[in-house]
Amino acid sequence: MKLASLKQGRDGTLIIVSENLQNAVCIPQIAPTLQSALDNWASIEPELIRASVALEQGKLKGAFKLEDFSHLTAPLPRCFNWSDGSVYLNHMELVRRARGAEMPATFLEEPLMYQGGSDDFKGCRDPIDLNDDEWGIDFEAEVAVVLDDVPMGVTEAEAGQHIKLITIVNDVSLRNIIPGELSKGFGFYQGKPASAFAPVVVTPDALGDAWDGGKLIGPMVCEINGQEFGRPDAGIDMNFEFPRLIAHAARTRRLCAGTVIGSGTVSNRNRSVGSSCIAEARMIEIIEEGQPRTPFLKFNDRVRIAYQTHTGSMPFGDIEQCVVRAQ
Amino acid sequence: MKLASLKQGRDGTLIIVSENLQNAVCIPQIAPTLQSALDNWASIEPELIRASVALEQGKLKGAFKLEDFSHLTAPLPRCFNWSDGSVYLNHMELVRRARGAEMPATFLEEPLMYQGGSDDFKGCRDPIDLNDDEWGIDFEAEVAVVLDDVPMGVTEAEAGQHIKLITIVNDVSLRNIIPGELSKGFGFYQGKPASAFAPVVVTPDALGDAWDGGKLIGPMVCEINGQEFGRPDAGIDMNFEFPRLIAHAARTRRLCAGTVIGSGTVSNRNRSVGSSCIAEARMIEIIEEGQPRTPFLKFNDRVRIAYQTHTGSMPFGDIEQCVVRAQ
Repeated sequence: MKLASLKQGRDGTLIIVSENLQNAVCIPQIAPTLQSALDNWASIEPELIRASVALEQGKLKGAFKLEDFSHLTAPLPRCFNWSDGSVYLNHMELVRRARGAEMPATFLEEPLMYQGGSDDFKGCRDPIDLNDDEWGIDFEAEVAVVLDDVPMGVTEAEAGQHIKLITIVNDVSLRNIIPGELSKGFGFYQGKPASAFAPVVVTPDALGDAWDGGKLIGPMVCEINGQEFGRPDAGIDMNFEFPRLIAHAARTRRLCAGTVIGSGTVSNRNRSVGSSCIAEARMIEIIEEGQPRTPFLKFNDRVRIAYQTHTGSMPFGDIEQCVVRAQ
Repeated sequence: MKLASLKQGRDGTLIIVSENLQNAVCIPQIAPTLQSALDNWASIEPELIRASVALEQGKLKGAFKLEDFSHLTAPLPRCFNWSDGSVYLNHMELVRRARGAEMPATFLEEPLMYQGGSDDFKGCRDPIDLNDDEWGIDFEAEVAVVLDDVPMGVTEAEAGQHIKLITIVNDVSLRNIIPGELSKGFGFYQGKPASAFAPVVVTPDALGDAWDGGKLIGPMVCEINGQEFGRPDAGIDMNFEFPRLIAHAARTRRLCAGTVIGSGTVSNRNRSVGSSCIAEARMIEIIEEGQPRTPFLKFNDRVRIAYQTHTGSMPFGDIEQCVVRAQ
């Protein structure tokens, strides 16, 4: 089953989307918003699945063509908890080297995670609108999972059952703001503006072999201005998988239904696959050529992120954003 | 006007509360939840004010006695953005000294702020329930403001108008977890379990002289197990006021209606007033006596926080929590 949200209301209007992303239907009689569905997932999910089957069979009244993804907001346009990990160690090593920071002593023993801003998530075609393109605007291609209620102290073994939906994210980052911010010791804030989400969130079962219960398998194909930039595989070099991230997040608190957990930037040690953020590519250039060559994003640049299964399908659709000066 | 939320539904049921905190009324015809009111504050606030006046005059049908604050959840039991500053520099200096950390180079030029977990806020009588009381359980008495929608790039001069409601918070902190967490460079996560809020949020005008447009004036009276622990004045030694904190938060992103901005632990340079967290008191003991004497909170300890105006009234009511082992 695939779900998305139309740009109607602060929390969007929930729609069920067909497997091929071409047809959709509103289901206000089941759940008006994705958050409301997640708040009662155990009872709502079976109803959504029945409607999803009917949609695929062309038997659902009110179905419409989903012709323009710009009508979509993020599946959760705002959520109560966006906790983003950093579990591809190759990314951590490269970006920390870039800003002259050490790897934390415990990086092999426990995941790194920060609390992100979750009150203004963007749709897959929304611009990256900022006031200044000297801030070192970068993209980060990530995998994210959406949870139901998670009890405090959940174990890694129990955590996987709370993963209800999966998608991909562009975790926009401002590289020229982050070093000063992190040096203050309280983590990211201004350096992480609004993240953007793929058109749809997908149930684990609908992903087949592409989801192994702990991670997504297959490349995150990234393009800048139509040129391929990288295609690191989300299933390779992931040091901690999602159930471990959830257990880490829930160690001292409950996680509310609709919590979104991110993987951090997908990154492979095999440099031939390229990168899914610019900061990494620049660090590799410094290592190999003595100085960075690839610029960060400027106004009018376009970035595209699409996860592909090994058979070439794109179950989440793609994120394609243009950097623009904020109005 | 004073507002609170009953423990009914994930977002609570909005009630208007009388000035003396003794009477209340549900107003589902105006707004079922505080978040829904904040989502349309400009049109909803006048209706709420009319109902509030009628409640004070005893003219409102359905009013009831608010006898037991344990029926209240946090005014926003979950919100989309909890951004907590640290603007009482005396607190920063003492707790950083306690954990052997330097003051950030820019601490006089820009506020420190972190993104906090906002999906599980506690009511004023809810327990601090945790799995382990060896984590260094501490309280922090803070002031917090609730905002309507704030545009990206808002100036400090414009920011104050977005402050719609004011309250106090117990920002529970786990002192034995924080140092290891901060050393990883991504800020607080496990070290900040669920925060608890005062019974009510109050409009700025209803605070009279106690609110000067940028800060609250008067002591945060803190008690542990019935013994006074400190009464630092929220209006003294606040290095950056709320409009500056809001401008800082909105520099690179919009803030959604219902965003809660915290001041960080209230702390005065005058040591005779005591502290509004245990970590500070312990650091002062180390400085003055060579070692800390005051223990962190253990299971069955009680902490109470009440802001008082200089005339002795408590416009927000008090927070009183017992530390218990999580079920």
